[in-house]
Amino acid sequence: MNENNYCIIMAGGYGSRFWPICKSNNPKQFLDILGTGQSMLQSTFSRFERICPRENIIIVTGELYADRVREQIKGLKCYQVLSEPTRRNTAPCIAYAASIIYARNPKANIIVTPSDHAIFGQDYFEQDMEQALALTEKNDIIITIGVRPTNPNTKYGYIQFAEEPALPKTENLHKVVTFTEKPPVEMARQFISTGEFFWNAGIFVWRLSTLRKAYRTYLPNIAKNFFTLTTETPAADLDSTYALSEAISVDFGIMEQADNVYVMEAGFEWSDVESWSSLYNTCEHDDLNNGIVSGHAFTYDTKNTLVHVPANKNVIIQGLDNYIVAADDNTILICPRDREELIVKFASDVELAELTRSLKPYKQPKVTTIHKKSDL
Amino acid sequence: MNENNYCIIMAGGYGSRFWPICKSNNPKQFLDILGTGQSMLQSTFSRFERICPRENIIIVTGELYADRVREQIKGLKCYQVLSEPTRRNTAPCIAYAASIIYARNPKANIIVTPSDHAIFGQDYFEQDMEQALALTEKNDIIITIGVRPTNPNTKYGYIQFAEEPALPKTENLHKVVTFTEKPPVEMARQFISTGEFFWNAGIFVWRLSTLRKAYRTYLPNIAKNFFTLTTETPAADLDSTYALSEAISVDFGIMEQADNVYVMEAGFEWSDVESWSSLYNTCEHDDLNNGIVSGHAFTYDTKNTLVHVPANKNVIIQGLDNYIVAADDNTILICPRDREELIVKFASDVELAELTRSLKPYKQPKVTTIHKKSDL
Repeated sequence: MNENNYCIIMAGGYGSRFWPICKSNNPKQFLDILGTGQSMLQSTFSRFERICPRENIIIVTGELYADRVREQIKGLKCYQVLSEPTRRNTAPCIAYAASIIYARNPKANIIVTPSDHAIFGQDYFEQDMEQALALTEKNDIIITIGVRPTNPNTKYGYIQFAEEPALPKTENLHKVVTFTEKPPVEMARQFISTGEFFWNAGIFVWRLSTLRKAYRTYLPNIAKNFFTLTTETPAADLDSTYALSEAISVDFGIMEQADNVYVMEAGFEWSDVESWSSLYNTCEHDDLNNGIVSGHAFTYDTKNTLVHVPANKNVIIQGLDNYIVAADDNTILICPRDREELIVKFASDVELAELTRSLKPYKQPKVTTIHKKSDL
Repeated sequence: MNENNYCIIMAGGYGSRFWPICKSNNPKQFLDILGTGQSMLQSTFSRFERICPRENIIIVTGELYADRVREQIKGLKCYQVLSEPTRRNTAPCIAYAASIIYARNPKANIIVTPSDHAIFGQDYFEQDMEQALALTEKNDIIITIGVRPTNPNTKYGYIQFAEEPALPKTENLHKVVTFTEKPPVEMARQFISTGEFFWNAGIFVWRLSTLRKAYRTYLPNIAKNFFTLTTETPAADLDSTYALSEAISVDFGIMEQADNVYVMEAGFEWSDVESWSSLYNTCEHDDLNNGIVSGHAFTYDTKNTLVHVPANKNVIIQGLDNYIVAADDNTILICPRDREELIVKFASDVELAELTRSLKPYKQPKVTTIHKKSDL
């Protein structure tokens, strides 16, 4: 395994689309969304352990989540878990990690990846990553991974690419023409019909020198302030660096500006699994199109239904069609799959009720009405 | 409070109609079926504490459940919890308790009651019990409590009574003509149309001397073997007394034979809450006819639905009509109310699956199929 191969895993997300199992204090990357027995972060880490030496994998997360990371991935060295004091989007996050890597190995060749996406086809994934690393080692280029779109998803970023392959022997590498974040559905349909667009998988490959040059050119303030950070930087200085930084994504700050950005078509299947529906579309189905992702499910006369309850729990469902049945240890959700947009409201109603309950100094006893014979 | 008033609470039932919250190791009497904050047994005990001195209440249960009784009702003296080594129906159970009571107070005047029925209208209940106790104190009669039937329930016992009141000043007391256990629905309808039938609430009032005479007359073997039991009887002797005893109900063994049995019409409302449907019919309903018995329920576009989850859990339901949503800490059940008969099958399927899992020496890892690009 090449000692220069590094990976930056971005694990600071706090999304709660998968309510009730996913909450801001327990976001998606720490959960076994896919029912594999591993959290999304653990799966991501395992995936990259086969590409980079284990000690070359850096996880960047929020201060609140650093302990959670160390619980889920044992034996990490100090520099491998970086805590961001404030959320500043992805450009500062990557710059911080790049600075820590620079101190260890200026020749690093780096894959930057989200921590909470699903990848199917590990062998194909490894082939792609190795091909990309080989290319960025020798060329001053940024490679982003593109996925052939299968539907006009409006929650993804789209990458338009030049038709001609960028290099004679790498037919899966194309020059990037445009980036479009979350287009309207009509536009997404058009994109797909042209055959010139990929989904943006959010995985970038570049060697450290290319990365540093790009930051100096397109995000000079971030380069100046973040490339001086080390593992010895006092907490107060880290705090102020973050506090004073602009919040900007690496996509917008660099990818859309630079002219050495290429897209490599993924040989693997990918989903960012960003909602219950997305999970339903991604997971395996039984004969009646039920997706039993987690839990011991017993379904009777039930179809098109997604089940995700704690792995050790039983759930018995009679006569549901097209539902989500999800639970954590405290909350059970039963909702039609096509009403998923309501879940945000449900979460807020429950949160408000819990707050109200916690404010009551004494729990009111529940009183069963006394039915009087004379009232009958 | 009259020192001669005694109560025998029969708490040995092991029914599992309320699966999944109710299992053979956790039967109905120990559960808060009605969502009142108290188990059925605790409610029953509290109800009788207002009629009998606390130390005059005897609970008879199975050996497996004796600790559970003491957990739920603190401070009981030794003789107040009697453990039956074997199930022998109600006649031996009552005889055992009566023998213990006889040693303490031969003048006892006793109410025998199930531990898992719902009573609404405590004041009316107390009035009835006091009236019955006053009558049995002075008369060598057995009073059973009858409830005016509201529907042709085929799971109840029916008591036919003589139209004329038994005594001039007690218009609610009638001589019993016949007992009929669980009639077919057509017969139940006929019974109701005559106006001469009550449901049998399973509550009997008799003084100890009447009780002992009835046993000696109609169940002489049980009288002989059980009336010698004391709190000092060695376990081996208790075991053999039970092992050798016939299993017979007090209804069949005495009530249907004796000619001094009267029925008193209940002034309170009663249900034996023997199924989820029965609970739904018994509980309070919201504007959309949902019965939220236990748990923090958030219902949206949901009606006619019964909810019973652990009191501290949230359950969010969108778009269900006429369902049961029930859960304990390990199992969630979602089933249409009109398919309740299937629950026995569900319980057995889950039990079999759990057994199968427990037999596997190693848990099989759950494998997510690798989707190959070439298969697409």
